[in-house]
Amino acid sequence: MPNSPAEDKIPVVGSASSPQCSEEGLCFSDGRRKVDYVLVFHHRRHGSVRSFASNSVSHDRISIVSNGNFPSAAGSDAAAGRGGSSPGREAASVGEVFVELGGAGGNDLTEPADHEMDLIRQEFEASLQEAGLEIERDKELKTQGHSFTRVHAPWPVLCREAEFLRIKVPTKTSYDLKEESGFGSTMSTVWRKMNQPFQPKVPHQDHECTKFLTHCFSRDKLHLYNITSKDTFFDNATRGRIVYEILRRTVCVRTCQTIGISTLIAKGVYDAAFPLHDGDYKVIGQPEERSDRQVLHDEWAKYSAFYKYQPIDLVRKYFGEKIGLYFAWLGVYTQLLIPASIVGIIVFGYGVATVDTNIPSLEMCDERLNFTMCPLCDGACDFWHLSTACGTARASHLFDNPATVFFAIFMSLWAVLFLEHWKRRQISLSFSWDLTGIEDDEEHPRPRYETILLQKKQRKENKVKKKNKKKKNEPEKQEDGAVTGKDRWRQKLLSAMAAGIPAAIEKLTWKDRLPGYFINISSIIFMFALTFSAVFGVIIYRITVSALMAMSPDPETKSNVRVTVTATAVIINLVVILILDEIYGAVALWLTELEIPKTETHFEEHLILKAFLLKFMNAYAPIFYVAFFKGRFAGRPGNYVYVFNDYRMEECAPGGCLIELCIQLSIIMLGKQLIQNNIFEIGIPKLKKLVRAIKDKGSAEKKMEDERPPQQWNLDYALAPFEGLTPEYMEMIIQFGFVSLFVASFPLAPLFALLNNVIEIRLDAKKFVTELRRPVAVRAKDIGIWYNILSGMGKFSVIINAFVISFTSDFIPRLVYQYMFSETGTMHGFIDHTLSYFNVSNFKHGTAPQNIEQADITVCRYKDYREPPWSPDAYTISKQYWCVLAARLAFVILFQNLVMFLSLVVAWGIPDVPKTIVEQFKREKKLLVDVFLREEKEKFQLIQSLFSKDATHQLSTNPLSPGQVLPLLGRYSTLPPGPTQGSGDGGGPRARCRAASFSQFTRSIPPSPKNENENSRHTAV
Amino acid sequence: MPNSPAEDKIPVVGSASSPQCSEEGLCFSDGRRKVDYVLVFHHRRHGSVRSFASNSVSHDRISIVSNGNFPSAAGSDAAAGRGGSSPGREAASVGEVFVELGGAGGNDLTEPADHEMDLIRQEFEASLQEAGLEIERDKELKTQGHSFTRVHAPWPVLCREAEFLRIKVPTKTSYDLKEESGFGSTMSTVWRKMNQPFQPKVPHQDHECTKFLTHCFSRDKLHLYNITSKDTFFDNATRGRIVYEILRRTVCVRTCQTIGISTLIAKGVYDAAFPLHDGDYKVIGQPEERSDRQVLHDEWAKYSAFYKYQPIDLVRKYFGEKIGLYFAWLGVYTQLLIPASIVGIIVFGYGVATVDTNIPSLEMCDERLNFTMCPLCDGACDFWHLSTACGTARASHLFDNPATVFFAIFMSLWAVLFLEHWKRRQISLSFSWDLTGIEDDEEHPRPRYETILLQKKQRKENKVKKKNKKKKNEPEKQEDGAVTGKDRWRQKLLSAMAAGIPAAIEKLTWKDRLPGYFINISSIIFMFALTFSAVFGVIIYRITVSALMAMSPDPETKSNVRVTVTATAVIINLVVILILDEIYGAVALWLTELEIPKTETHFEEHLILKAFLLKFMNAYAPIFYVAFFKGRFAGRPGNYVYVFNDYRMEECAPGGCLIELCIQLSIIMLGKQLIQNNIFEIGIPKLKKLVRAIKDKGSAEKKMEDERPPQQWNLDYALAPFEGLTPEYMEMIIQFGFVSLFVASFPLAPLFALLNNVIEIRLDAKKFVTELRRPVAVRAKDIGIWYNILSGMGKFSVIINAFVISFTSDFIPRLVYQYMFSETGTMHGFIDHTLSYFNVSNFKHGTAPQNIEQADITVCRYKDYREPPWSPDAYTISKQYWCVLAARLAFVILFQNLVMFLSLVVAWGIPDVPKTIVEQFKREKKLLVDVFLREEKEKFQLIQSLFSKDATHQLSTNPLSPGQVLPLLGRYSTLPPGPTQGSGDGGGPRARCRAASFSQFTRSIPPSPKNENENSRHTAV
Repeated sequence: MPNSPAEDKIPVVGSASSPQCSEEGLCFSDGRRKVDYVLVFHHRRHGSVRSFASNSVSHDRISIVSNGNFPSAAGSDAAAGRGGSSPGREAASVGEVFVELGGAGGNDLTEPADHEMDLIRQEFEASLQEAGLEIERDKELKTQGHSFTRVHAPWPVLCREAEFLRIKVPTKTSYDLKEESGFGSTMSTVWRKMNQPFQPKVPHQDHECTKFLTHCFSRDKLHLYNITSKDTFFDNATRGRIVYEILRRTVCVRTCQTIGISTLIAKGVYDAAFPLHDGDYKVIGQPEERSDRQVLHDEWAKYSAFYKYQPIDLVRKYFGEKIGLYFAWLGVYTQLLIPASIVGIIVFGYGVATVDTNIPSLEMCDERLNFTMCPLCDGACDFWHLSTACGTARASHLFDNPATVFFAIFMSLWAVLFLEHWKRRQISLSFSWDLTGIEDDEEHPRPRYETILLQKKQRKENKVKKKNKKKKNEPEKQEDGAVTGKDRWRQKLLSAMAAGIPAAIEKLTWKDRLPGYFINISSIIFMFALTFSAVFGVIIYRITVSALMAMSPDPETKSNVRVTVTATAVIINLVVILILDEIYGAVALWLTELEIPKTETHFEEHLILKAFLLKFMNAYAPIFYVAFFKGRFAGRPGNYVYVFNDYRMEECAPGGCLIELCIQLSIIMLGKQLIQNNIFEIGIPKLKKLVRAIKDKGSAEKKMEDERPPQQWNLDYALAPFEGLTPEYMEMIIQFGFVSLFVASFPLAPLFALLNNVIEIRLDAKKFVTELRRPVAVRAKDIGIWYNILSGMGKFSVIINAFVISFTSDFIPRLVYQYMFSETGTMHGFIDHTLSYFNVSNFKHGTAPQNIEQADITVCRYKDYREPPWSPDAYTISKQYWCVLAARLAFVILFQNLVMFLSLVVAWGIPDVPKTIVEQFKREKKLLVDVFLREEKEKFQLIQSLFSKDATHQLSTNPLSPGQVLPLLGRYSTLPPGPTQGSGDGGGPRARCRAASFSQFTRSIPPSPKNENENSRHTAV
Repeated sequence: MPNSPAEDKIPVVGSASSPQCSEEGLCFSDGRRKVDYVLVFHHRRHGSVRSFASNSVSHDRISIVSNGNFPSAAGSDAAAGRGGSSPGREAASVGEVFVELGGAGGNDLTEPADHEMDLIRQEFEASLQEAGLEIERDKELKTQGHSFTRVHAPWPVLCREAEFLRIKVPTKTSYDLKEESGFGSTMSTVWRKMNQPFQPKVPHQDHECTKFLTHCFSRDKLHLYNITSKDTFFDNATRGRIVYEILRRTVCVRTCQTIGISTLIAKGVYDAAFPLHDGDYKVIGQPEERSDRQVLHDEWAKYSAFYKYQPIDLVRKYFGEKIGLYFAWLGVYTQLLIPASIVGIIVFGYGVATVDTNIPSLEMCDERLNFTMCPLCDGACDFWHLSTACGTARASHLFDNPATVFFAIFMSLWAVLFLEHWKRRQISLSFSWDLTGIEDDEEHPRPRYETILLQKKQRKENKVKKKNKKKKNEPEKQEDGAVTGKDRWRQKLLSAMAAGIPAAIEKLTWKDRLPGYFINISSIIFMFALTFSAVFGVIIYRITVSALMAMSPDPETKSNVRVTVTATAVIINLVVILILDEIYGAVALWLTELEIPKTETHFEEHLILKAFLLKFMNAYAPIFYVAFFKGRFAGRPGNYVYVFNDYRMEECAPGGCLIELCIQLSIIMLGKQLIQNNIFEIGIPKLKKLVRAIKDKGSAEKKMEDERPPQQWNLDYALAPFEGLTPEYMEMIIQFGFVSLFVASFPLAPLFALLNNVIEIRLDAKKFVTELRRPVAVRAKDIGIWYNILSGMGKFSVIINAFVISFTSDFIPRLVYQYMFSETGTMHGFIDHTLSYFNVSNFKHGTAPQNIEQADITVCRYKDYREPPWSPDAYTISKQYWCVLAARLAFVILFQNLVMFLSLVVAWGIPDVPKTIVEQFKREKKLLVDVFLREEKEKFQLIQSLFSKDATHQLSTNPLSPGQVLPLLGRYSTLPPGPTQGSGDGGGPRARCRAASFSQFTRSIPPSPKNENENSRHTAV
């Protein structure tokens, strides 16, 4: 190591004014270096306490193992970063560090397995130090319990990685956003004033009229960036991301063949790894400035802020783009639910208002009309009067009225509008968050993929070996050892290759995945069958229970049959759905693992698709049954359909199936939301926390009491780990299904969704701010596959709603009656028209009512379009039936094509990219070109001034020595090498950035340490 | 002008080996400088012959006015190019040139209007020379007739513009395309061998296994490009494009306020402007190498090559990307028509094979069944036997059989497949033609837009002026003159601004366009009405003529009623369609002009949409009528629907409406194609040519005979001008409609389309190669709005086909009969089932047949589902009707959703970008980065070697003087300035290129002449 650590640390120390380290536990013990990441591991109980205790007492409470930063090794660091260095060199340097570590920690403290893990940890942490990170460990008396390794990324490492990750940072140049003038300006001022109470109180929220130009970070252009302090230039989220990037790609070659922290956590080497929160979220006293976490907690993550906009920029700053996009999406969705709810309420209100003037329900309630209905069950049930079902008829009208049709069309367009609006919002966000131009990185393969690939290679090798052996007939033993050694070497090479070197051509083919696919398909089929059998089970329950209850002699029981059965059945449904939901989540995870997807992105996509499929089926199967199948296979009096030879298939309530669908939908939707919100999202985390607390208490009691207050890392470790956004999105998507798919039957669904979401946002916010460890800030430029699912659901909802309106509701039969069969042109007589006649004498033996109260009944009515008993072909389907059916189908075609056409018009009418953004984009591009042209000009002037005077004298006397000119040249020359310019549009920016970083990492000529010093001097001036 | 022209011309002269000027008329009279563009103007007859004749004799036959190339003024040239220079400077330089011209030509020769035009021409050509172009004019004795101005672009101009236009050129680096290995390789070899006879014999077609890296042209990187000769480095198409670009943006400030050659042509200042063809297309003798035009003519533009692939790369090279894409698209479409035709033939074959076993048609032909049908017209017609319609029944089965349903589904998927395939092909082409990364240029506004804008500004100004006057009450006269002067100045400024300076914020709002929109909408509605009335007129014709013919006593006439009427009506339809088609084309153009679209692109899009809408309606209205309306409003016996109180609405033939639809479709499709191909595409151009030739002859006879053989520009001027691809595309799109929209009724449509297209390709090719002036090579990265129209039509075809199958064909009634009403489960009795009964006594007075031959008839049959006379509600629509209707509607829903789903699956299953392209793209990007990194490295080494030795001595003794180092630095430093790097993905490459060109055009520091010399020396080495 050519430069001593002390010398290199100077800039870091010099610039570390550390205002952010005021709080306890956010920094190393020197109070200057920020803790950017924490690795936690857990000492096993059966550790050898003695030696450790005796060892640690003699040390400082905290020993800092700092490797400084080796600027001259930046190139090789980078090489290691990109592709892992060659095993030989690696081993040597690891050895070096190992010796160093050998003194600091004891590596003979733990049991064999633990011992091995300790070695892995040591190697891993040494590699981290080699990559430039600084590490601090607790060295206190710890027989067991958790040990925290704190990681700090010094400025040069941050710079290197920021360049590599192409992180966009603000330059010194800012520009004013276009101010509207005239009427528009007044309007926007008024609007802003009106909006004031809804705006969260977030600092710097008002400075939105100027925007700093941003640009990919490059070490050569430090002077262009707006660097006030090297400690705060990269915010904590970015620092965390940078460290995570290093953790992710750091290779363990010697002790275990793995890459990255996630594998180590999976192997149990570490318990957890997370970046630190920005201190406590509770504001204690009156600090002059609240931390981001405190601001988020006060202005965002509490229920009392439910009416406010979300401080989405701050959320993004604190949690990263991916989580920021989730909340932005949730916000847009919730916001757009407001108009949908209002229209829904109006539609419902229309139903309420017209219920007393609605002729069909009036006719049903009219006792004078006195329709004698056929019994609802065989034998035990008696004939009954339709007017007794007056209640359901009236209730049915609330949801089944002409306004519902309008509402269904409205909601279909609303779904399109929502998606278009979100597209625009996403583009606005990606512009203001500088996500334009980022592309999906080439990801490292997942640990599991790698393992399987290695196994495959080994199997292949073994086969070849065996073949060779057979051919050569040589003794086996000798070679075996050699091959093992060779295998080892291969493994190492492979893992290094997998870390990014493009030569890793070998990949898993479909043959390797065949068993996985097979299990997948069969499991999914099994799950589907499970769902359907659950639904069927509930149907059976309903049929049997209602039959049994009908047979009960108690009239009280009898009269409540329908209510009791429906209510209990729906609740059973709900419980089944909730249980299966959890099971399916786990199953989807397991199945996706079996598929061995190559990258994390693939994994996530496959998981989401599978989970969505299963959960969607689960949540909607009973609803689909009620909407489209219930009551359609019941048969007719005298010829009922029986299940198990005994029980009649169930029919819909006299008011129509829509009211049942409505009940089913509302209970499942509300129940699912309430229970999932309360139990799964609040209850279970609390419970887990409690369990963890009790556990920790147990261990804490055993160890000596510690006077030191808990550090931030202790507090954060006590929180639950962040487990991805998939469940959050999934919940919302399923809810979106309730809102869009069957909205024709339940206009209040948007309202309930709105109420739920207002709470959900704050609940999620609370969870993220107070109950979860800080997630690594992940970049994402859109919500990914969720958008496709949403859009697919929107399209599906059109056809579903068309069918609900035409087949489940009575809308079409009424229309047909009014315009084709009614003699007066009004709805009078509609009920009579829908009821067919049945001659009581045609009852099959044993199915006629046994205790007939009214013996004079010869004809009873039932709801169907069939020929009367006196017709030549009695009980066959009548002309009316076909007529209504044709009308229903025609309506489906009309509705579907109309809505599809309108959706196209809406989507076509709303441009994807807002005009203002297009203009700003152009402007920004122009400004950036200007800035860099100015730079180029300055360079030319410099060089000209250098050469224009007498060169002989100039160079010997001018304060600008060659050493100083060179870095300047270097700075300009690494303006991204134009090559990629021509190579394409999609890949352009990334390739450019890649090219830039590539040149940084590979070229050997530029005298980079001097360059760096030059640059830092520049910025200091 | 600091440098004398002679000095600067040296490199041009030195490098001009001019092998391409072997042929007569492709070069200036010096035989070296290529003619890149020709401007033609026409002397008016009433010119003053005397003075001109006396003048011209004293001069050389040809006087070359060459301004040389002013390298030092390159910057200002560029500025002029970008935004027009300031009026003051312009005027001065124009003055200079003007003096020069004053000597060469006489400007007092023509009548006032002509005189003005002459001045405009002089100014314009002077501006061209100022922009660096070289000009040659005929100076012969020309009293009238055409005068040709030839334009040559010298190397520096080409370089400058190529850089500005970001033309991609090949670099020295090439790479091998990946060779497949193993089985794939064998397969591809076999495939290539099999394909050999289908490949056109085009030179360099085989070298496809290596590809040169391409890169945006930049004058600073000349050494990187593969420049063998400066004369051939840019091919003729590119040269033409470059000159056109200059012509397009050159401003006329002094004599008229316009920009660009197109305005001047519109004003009649010039007659035409076109680049030259590459010599004659006929190969005379045995030249060692054929010119591109000859190769295209021999291998592509002749009918005998119909079975060959198109040499699409050569087409692109010769005609530019836009035309290349058209032919590529046409090729893909034609290729994909082959499988569609084959399946169509099979489906038709199935119909032919089953016609003798088809029960319904057998039943119809069976005379034993003896259905007595009700008369086809009132009074005059008699009852008739169904078996007499046996012929149409059998013919009907050919097209109306179950295979048609399969074919409709197949063709819907085929349409999706075609679009997906084209998407892939387009991406492949844009990769191999280096179109990736090009973006739509910011276009100049159209001349008309500019004019209207100016008028608007003037009106505004006048208003303000008037207001001021009213306020100030000052005398008017004095100010008036001042304001006019000011207006002039404003106009100049405006036209300069419009030429590209972004400050031109003023634009036309919807208010200015309101009258245009109004006329548009009303005209389109009128056109629609016209189309419909034409269709209705033909219906009336059919009804009246058939009624009249039926009344004729001649039995021969009577028996041929249907055939005669149908045939004549369709022919009338066809003629109307063809006439309206031409009218609508002109109307669409006129309407689009009224809309005042801002740019040429907008104009084209609006025009296409309008023309498509009108022509689509026109071509399909009669077909839609036959498919969905004919025979549905005819009423029933005893209650017919009458038009004009006298004529019964027409019914379909007894065999079903499908056969009529089929006849209509086939005649319109074939007739349209044949007539349009023969008359409009071959005949009319020939006629026009003839007319032109006669005209020219007339004028030629008057002037003295000229011994000189006609030059290439004379030959080319005699050709027809190129008028855009819109008509070509439109024809194909309308044909695509025939193939997709009603394909269910006419499975042979793809076959006829295929036959037509095989001819069409060669016809178009012939036209482009031999009959049109060479079009300017226009870049385009896709086929634009046509893709959307195609995709919209594909979607529309699904629903249309669903309706054709379910409503026009008898497919559904047959299915329904077989599975619901047939007692045997077979089709026996189907005909009987579809015919209703009518009691002859129920005929209204006067409508019963007058000359009844069979007096014993009491009941006749008619095709409808109605209750028989003996039913309680006689003649009302029967249950069967509703049943069949429901089935039909259900089929529509099923078909539409099934096909939509399958289309989604197909579109989703085919990735948009072929895998090989993705790989090549990545590889190329990497290679480019490598190339430029190597460059950078070399630079560093150079600089290091410069500084590493003793600086004091080095600079004075080293052969590398500062003057030599500087340009090298400059070269690297203008690696596109990284700025844009960060600014976004979409705009990335373009912004980069823009940045590069911007820096070229605006920076004043780089010593560019030296730089250029350096570079040329470099490449010479």
